[in-house]
Amino acid sequence: MNALGKHLLLELKGCNKEVLNDLSFLKEALLAAANEAGATVLGESFHRFNPQGVSGVVVITESHLFIHTWPEYGYAAADIFTCGDSVQPEKAAEILIKKLGSKNHSITEIRRGILDI
Amino acid sequence: MNALGKHLLLELKGCNKEVLNDLSFLKEALLAAANEAGATVLGESFHRFNPQGVSGVVVITESHLFIHTWPEYGYAAADIFTCGDSVQPEKAAEILIKKLGSKNHSITEIRRGILDI
Repeated sequence: MNALGKHLLLELKGCNKEVLNDLSFLKEALLAAANEAGATVLGESFHRFNPQGVSGVVVITESHLFIHTWPEYGYAAADIFTCGDSVQPEKAAEILIKKLGSKNHSITEIRRGILDI
Repeated sequence: MNALGKHLLLELKGCNKEVLNDLSFLKEALLAAANEAGATVLGESFHRFNPQGVSGVVVITESHLFIHTWPEYGYAAADIFTCGDSVQPEKAAEILIKKLGSKNHSITEIRRGILDI
């Protein structure tokens, strides 16, 4: 089954709550995850909410990574969307799980762009 | 079943190929979709690839919208991730499908952040 893109949906529960509210830490974590996966970073956009929570995205040549955090619940949703064979999104997932200290996570893999070609 | 976020995954096939390569058009389309859904735009990042294809993301207070296009296949992957009851992601989906001229689309809805709270 050929697909243009591989999309990993991470449900990260039981995370370190302080980390989930730390924009700088999360930006570094996403950039580190992108680099570890072998991706090329094109741009990023991060925002911290009041009273809490962070949203951030890193656009890569091979697609994107994003994270949305709910520190009050120790929860983060993260996506790693990649295309091509030169990147290893699973490595990015491992890094995020570790850096956020998630004690309870799930990863759902979805193939995007399954075409009759 | 309560969830923190609603995530729509759009598979857009049979799109207008010219539109899929037009960064300005796609940026306007995503911003229009965000506005129509009732979202508040915080930032965006768009990139055009050589020889073709565009990746773009719009970060909104309520999470994000992104698009990745493959003009050569008339295909685009788009996601609309929202949280809260004040936005209507389905409206954003309708606009993207229409503006890209997709003749064959599917929408998968995924609930993110289902917590025991």
